[in-house]
Amino acid sequence: MSKLLVKNFSLSIDGFGAGPHQDLEHPLGVRGPELMEWFFTTRAWRQMHGQEGGETGVDNGVAEQGFAGIGAWIIGRNMFGPIRGPWPDESWRGWWGEEPPYHTPVFVLTHHARAPLPMKGDTEFHFVTDGIHAALERAREAAAGRDIRLGGGVLTVREYLRAGLIDELNVALRPVLLGTGEHLFRDIDLHALGYECTRSFSGERAIHLTLRRHARQAGGGA
Amino acid sequence: MSKLLVKNFSLSIDGFGAGPHQDLEHPLGVRGPELMEWFFTTRAWRQMHGQEGGETGVDNGVAEQGFAGIGAWIIGRNMFGPIRGPWPDESWRGWWGEEPPYHTPVFVLTHHARAPLPMKGDTEFHFVTDGIHAALERAREAAAGRDIRLGGGVLTVREYLRAGLIDELNVALRPVLLGTGEHLFRDIDLHALGYECTRSFSGERAIHLTLRRHARQAGGGA
Repeated sequence: MSKLLVKNFSLSIDGFGAGPHQDLEHPLGVRGPELMEWFFTTRAWRQMHGQEGGETGVDNGVAEQGFAGIGAWIIGRNMFGPIRGPWPDESWRGWWGEEPPYHTPVFVLTHHARAPLPMKGDTEFHFVTDGIHAALERAREAAAGRDIRLGGGVLTVREYLRAGLIDELNVALRPVLLGTGEHLFRDIDLHALGYECTRSFSGERAIHLTLRRHARQAGGGA
Repeated sequence: MSKLLVKNFSLSIDGFGAGPHQDLEHPLGVRGPELMEWFFTTRAWRQMHGQEGGETGVDNGVAEQGFAGIGAWIIGRNMFGPIRGPWPDESWRGWWGEEPPYHTPVFVLTHHARAPLPMKGDTEFHFVTDGIHAALERAREAAAGRDIRLGGGVLTVREYLRAGLIDELNVALRPVLLGTGEHLFRDIDLHALGYECTRSFSGERAIHLTLRRHARQAGGGA
């Protein structure tokens, strides 16, 4: 069965996955881009954005693996765009231009219905209004045996974590201190949920950690 | 002037510096020893305890550096022992036997006065009842230009952090998830206090991080 995976999720040493005050100008929050600096320098990221060059070291290998074998994505509405409340019209088409870097169906969690939005390069956004379990079911069907990648943001990952639905998280720990922002693991008991750290190694600009849920917990709720 | 340093402070990935339910049987809390496994395997630790052998890699180098150039220690009462409230008698002499591994004056923060306690190997415990600033002053005098090491536990480090008194922290991040326990940085804005991460590298069993306070903040309160 396809797994639900969080890949390349960047965290500060003090545990923040996004800075404070997210808006159109600061989609990752204030100082949020510092979390992603390991990624922006890679060949993988530059290729995603139609650019040449980029580094090809350890961090790049991790970045490339983040897109391998993925048949569908799930993202929170804030990752899709800065608009809150009902859609004023259909003009917002994501942060990524006409050819987003997903190339699969992408299920967007929202409280406000909207027609599916096909984009160039086989990305199609589907707006799911009936919750995280429904989004996962639809993504699983669309992925057809491949894995499902859960994008973000922080609140979306926390919801899926608490529901015990994430099979594996790859975290990129950046050597920065944000001080404030959105904390990924606060008040979530990862040990009680059955997670353990199965791998850790250093890249050029981040430390990469794998957190995996024990098999003994795989069937149970949380 | 001598600096106040936190060295080799072990943390789980989810930010805990000790497990829950600390007592005589679990001085580091339940599962707390998992945080220290990088240290227990080193030659430095074995030498401290009069044993042969031990590993001599990256983790050992960090462990050895933790004791270099230190002229005095400050520790919380819980690091000295499990007894709470007034001292029933003088029979508790620390966790470490007759020759503790400090070999300097050690200032123990407590609300309950007690006579100084000289031990073998030049360790002498002094019980300080008038707060963290007074303990730091006395330690600075005793250190005579060498640095002061702040041992622990978590609450003691948090008090000194919040007061803006720690010049540098060396954290050993262990690839384990405790889920519960004593969180080191929760609700402390390290960025606002002027800290940044100046170094990170992997050892055999831990990732070593250095957090240093900016010079621009060194004179100010917090």
